Amino acid sequence: MQKLSEADLHAAVSGLNGWQVVNGKLHRVYKFADFIHAFGFMATSALGIEKAGHHPEWFNVYNRVTVDLTTHDAGGITEKDIDLAKFLDEVAKKLQ
Amino acid sequence: MQKLSEADLHAAVSGLNGWQVVNGKLHRVYKFADFIHAFGFMATSALGIEKAGHHPEWFNVYNRVTVDLTTHDAGGITEKDIDLAKFLDEVAKKLQ
Amino acid sequence: MQKLSEADLHAAVSGLNGWQVVNGKLHRVYKFADFIHAFGFMATSALGIEKAGHHPEWFNVYNRVTVDLTTHDAGGITEKDIDLAKFLDEVAKKLQ
Amino acid sequence: MQKLSEADLHAAVSGLNGWQVVNGKLHRVYKFADFIHAFGFMATSALGIEKAGHHPEWFNVYNRVTVDLTTHDAGGITEKDIDLAKFLDEVAKKLQ
Repeated sequence: MQKLSEADLHAAVSGLNGWQVVNGKLHRVYKFADFIHAFGFMATSALGIEKAGHHPEWFNVYNRVTVDLTTHDAGGITEKDIDLAKFLDEVAKKLQ
Repeated sequence: MQKLSEADLHAAVSGLNGWQVVNGKLHRVYKFADFIHAFGFMATSALGIEKAGHHPEWFNVYNRVTVDLTTHDAGGITEKDIDLAKFLDEVAKKLQ
Repeated sequence: MQKLSEADLHAAVSGLNGWQVVNGKLHRVYKFADFIHAFGFMATSALGIEKAGHHPEWFNVYNRVTVDLTTHDAGGITEKDIDLAKFLDEVAKKLQ
Repeated sequence: MQKLSEADLHAAVSGLNGWQVVNGKLHRVYKFADFIHAFGFMATSALGIEKAGHHPEWFNVYNRVTVDLTTHDAGGITEKDIDLAKFLDEVAKKLQ
């Protein structure tokens, strides 16, 4: 799994909604109605995350979840992070 | 919290979608795409369940969750069960 | 993955604590202090379950979780069920 | 619910294990064996958190959970944060 080139990263991020590259990581903030839905998003996603074996950095306070994605072994953002971003978006969209 | 009368129970169940009275309990089966979404439904709902202090009997296998609701202290179905049915429906609808 | 022979099944169940064969499935009941710990057991286990791709039949009411394990594709109890039983026991022991 | 006095805060933190006041918040880092146990800690705790109606700021990456507690309405650390710290410690101890 290799770090994406600048061009590939730019193309991949353009295809995502609400994600930006911040401090070299794929970054997004999700807002939900309340803690139940914010944590429900995390609990649902956690099953797919553990299955894929690729884990996010994520921060929660009340109805907000902030996510940063990078692939430590590759020293940057890889295809795995793009896939995880898409998976998180799918789950979040349902619970928002 | 009192057991609903036959008439009130009938009226309440008529207002719900997919619920029936089976063996004196409010009963519904939910189907999801897969285990991730079925368990995501349970994990999200669990927060509201514990908050309300009223717990379901629920059974899961893979993408299916079967729910039975009754209020033990009242010896039957109460308004608490109707409220829990509505809450579970709201969460399930999002994750289905 | 093949159904265990009677002898292998007997040996495997003897090595487990609290499990019995009931209706052709590996069966155990767990009790916890309350719903928080019972559901915490389920939520923690769910991550390993989805990762292993082998799912239990499980039933929860308040502080109790009843589990039945079988491998549908093999028409009976397999090594996968024994492994899942051990994993569930490890998680349950911590939260009990 | 009032912000604790310096003396009361000092006494309360002395009675806790592994917690410090950092940037005016009650702060602790928990380490677990892996993501399953770290997220299991969060999922179990989340039920008690929502029930108590007092929510942490928490950050997770893989096997690590970093927690910061404060009571926004009181503009500082209150008894609610001390109670939440104790509850999180109890759950974490089991899953560590």
